[in-house]
Amino acid sequence: MDKFIVLQDIITSRRSTKPAVLNGRKIDDQQIQQLLSLANWAPTHANTEPWRFIVYSGDAVQQFCHRHAELYKQSTPPEKFNTAKYEKQQHNGDKASHLIAVYMQRGTNPNITELEEICATAAAVQNILLGAETLDIAVLWSTGGSTLAPAMKEFLGTGQGRPHDRTAVHGVCGRTRQTRPPPPHRTQNKMDQRLSGLTPENLFFPSRCFLSKQKLRPITG
Amino acid sequence: MDKFIVLQDIITSRRSTKPAVLNGRKIDDQQIQQLLSLANWAPTHANTEPWRFIVYSGDAVQQFCHRHAELYKQSTPPEKFNTAKYEKQQHNGDKASHLIAVYMQRGTNPNITELEEICATAAAVQNILLGAETLDIAVLWSTGGSTLAPAMKEFLGTGQGRPHDRTAVHGVCGRTRQTRPPPPHRTQNKMDQRLSGLTPENLFFPSRCFLSKQKLRPITG
Repeated sequence: MDKFIVLQDIITSRRSTKPAVLNGRKIDDQQIQQLLSLANWAPTHANTEPWRFIVYSGDAVQQFCHRHAELYKQSTPPEKFNTAKYEKQQHNGDKASHLIAVYMQRGTNPNITELEEICATAAAVQNILLGAETLDIAVLWSTGGSTLAPAMKEFLGTGQGRPHDRTAVHGVCGRTRQTRPPPPHRTQNKMDQRLSGLTPENLFFPSRCFLSKQKLRPITG
Repeated sequence: MDKFIVLQDIITSRRSTKPAVLNGRKIDDQQIQQLLSLANWAPTHANTEPWRFIVYSGDAVQQFCHRHAELYKQSTPPEKFNTAKYEKQQHNGDKASHLIAVYMQRGTNPNITELEEICATAAAVQNILLGAETLDIAVLWSTGGSTLAPAMKEFLGTGQGRPHDRTAVHGVCGRTRQTRPPPPHRTQNKMDQRLSGLTPENLFFPSRCFLSKQKLRPITG
């Protein structure tokens, strides 16, 4: 089959699945291994391979979620504390099979920027999401709750002696028997409307490409 | 065919191609459109869709590279200026077909972090790279030269009134007739060695997964 078509199908079928609709069935550890082997082939400047994963399975998934909720409670002023959010966080792992915490380990090469290391790690996560789609594994790429809080970094132990490491995300993986929601909406035409009259011969404007009058100036000048 | 196998093949075959080995053949604009349509399906928190693309083709590719080299010259102190680097930057587009500048357009929703927008944009770029692999398009995801410099942001016109937008990358696309280099090296075993004796029952350690003694503490405590 045409490889582009297969890839397009995977990419456009991929979507986030909320932990609440998981059905509790477990995923083989081997399939999680398969996902991480895909992550390991993300592009990386100077082969720093900054992506790091901590995988939780079994009881550790719920433990993680309980600790995550506690971190939220501890780090939120009482007047901002939301009980419903706290309880939701506590139960996010109840029907999950695995939980993967992902962080970027900052290398020591001064020529490699933090942005490059973050982008490499994000590309690794995208490989995981696409792989999960092919294996019918439901995933939520979560950066919510306390994921990005300093307390989470400490909790994961990624901070010791490495102040520049960044907790990126955590992903809740599981199975779902329910019909998944339709693919997310993507705006295809909104940007095109901004391009009228701005198409000089040697600049090519695809859908979703945005070029303001300001941007043209340096090219023609 | 098994979708996972196809995806694995695409992901592990993908590699960077230096502009110098391109053969000068042109890519159909339609194929660039196809790549950008894949980018548009990247995951995005709250559907902000922060990725933005400016596509250069024809003479504009060389113009971009010349301006890129000039930016390097203008923004580099004379004692640090490297003539070879300058000349290389000038000629990076000589055999290229298209050049795609990618940036992250920061939204106004205060609940969406900059990190999330950067990760979404990086995932969009990864979709482009994987798509290019299926269409036999050679790509370099470049964050080098002046890509990340404030002057480049100004050059692309992404900064006007939007101080929080970030230039992420530019990608040089073209065709190559030459045998491509073997896939990049990935370290598969280095991390495993750090895991000996650290495998409690409910924590699962795949290859490339790193867990220090410090990390265990919060889980069991």
